[in-house]
Amino acid sequence: MNKMKQRRTIRKYQSRDISDDLLNDLLATACRASTCGNMQCYSIVATRSAEGKAALAPAHFHQPMVTQAPVVLTFCIDLHRFTRWCELRRATPGYNNFEWFVTGSVDALLVAQSFCTAAEEAGLGICYLGTTTFNPQAIIDALHLPPLVFPITTVTVGWPDEEPALTDRLPLEAVVHQETYHDYTPSDIDRFYAYKESLQENLQFIAENGKETLAQVFTDVRYTKKDSEEMSKSLYEAMKRQGF
Amino acid sequence: MNKMKQRRTIRKYQSRDISDDLLNDLLATACRASTCGNMQCYSIVATRSAEGKAALAPAHFHQPMVTQAPVVLTFCIDLHRFTRWCELRRATPGYNNFEWFVTGSVDALLVAQSFCTAAEEAGLGICYLGTTTFNPQAIIDALHLPPLVFPITTVTVGWPDEEPALTDRLPLEAVVHQETYHDYTPSDIDRFYAYKESLQENLQFIAENGKETLAQVFTDVRYTKKDSEEMSKSLYEAMKRQGF
Repeated sequence: MNKMKQRRTIRKYQSRDISDDLLNDLLATACRASTCGNMQCYSIVATRSAEGKAALAPAHFHQPMVTQAPVVLTFCIDLHRFTRWCELRRATPGYNNFEWFVTGSVDALLVAQSFCTAAEEAGLGICYLGTTTFNPQAIIDALHLPPLVFPITTVTVGWPDEEPALTDRLPLEAVVHQETYHDYTPSDIDRFYAYKESLQENLQFIAENGKETLAQVFTDVRYTKKDSEEMSKSLYEAMKRQGF
Repeated sequence: MNKMKQRRTIRKYQSRDISDDLLNDLLATACRASTCGNMQCYSIVATRSAEGKAALAPAHFHQPMVTQAPVVLTFCIDLHRFTRWCELRRATPGYNNFEWFVTGSVDALLVAQSFCTAAEEAGLGICYLGTTTFNPQAIIDALHLPPLVFPITTVTVGWPDEEPALTDRLPLEAVVHQETYHDYTPSDIDRFYAYKESLQENLQFIAENGKETLAQVFTDVRYTKKDSEEMSKSLYEAMKRQGF
């Protein structure tokens, strides 16, 4: 548990590879994660070749981790395998819908996080790529994902070549509610975000971007309403195109 | 990592409670999980009172874990808190859309799985309730979730009062693809599902339900097309009603 408390996202990796034995051991450990009805509605695509990583890089806005990490894992919702099994067993599957898109994403994300915890315990470093849901169609194409398979997150893995500082988190009481949800008063928000807003690096982001507040750095620069709405549209269309 | 390899879902709990200190320590550990842009797009509602658990029970089809476990944690997508912060900081948020429903679900599920791994390492047992996305509106009502907050999974936690056998998993090669997705031939499916289909408990499910194949137990009894389509509709409507 101490390792989990001290974990950092690692974006720079040594050139050293990860052995097949270690990678398979970590993946098998991850697959012990809970899964809906023991259906394992996920697949994991392991990209290790330079060509494979280069094919994925544009979908991730060419973040350097994709080509520098020895292993790139794309965690996918997968109702295709289970559906194939049903079809070959005189059963009529009904998993091409929104419920199973969401249930498959739960399955895939629990496996992803178990993989990361096991990898970090083994001394590896990981980075999640949120870009996966920004450009799903490009990933679907690069990895030849068939209908009812959908990329939900990506993890780059390798031996750490940096020791970043621990990042901030909101106070626990900001994210945990007792019994029922308790809404936030303006003074709650002030109190919970005060530390984040006081950090030197965040003050610098405000200055560099010519903004008044840190929140404006998020809404005007990092994750704008316009971009989010466009991404929502393409994410929804990609989901439909994959048959959900 | 050995603990992760040997983990079992626990559905029966001792009456012994979980101390606030331990629960908070586990929750704080879980919050070290990766999160998109360090935005922490999640909230966790901890239900410990008998009344609170009774209010949640119908949404989970009265599965006994809900009322018997000392702690029930509902992990929610939460774009409300971040949106409130933006509004109070002269920033224009754009997180009321499908992209952030999915991104928030990634955030919430990584925290949920980190919580479970930490809890199991501390000797606790957990059970995920997939029913969360079957009846989201009932949970939204019971927990008073405001717009832009959505329950994505539920975990019951307590000290184990059973020692179930390790459940089966598909062979690793059935769920991991090298470089790109490789589709399954009928003989792949036969090979990958052979062990599951050979298990005594599964043969018994087939017999008890008067079916020909295990797949038919899933499609005709456990997760039917009709139910899935109805749940898809209510899940989508609940998502829209919460403002995404």
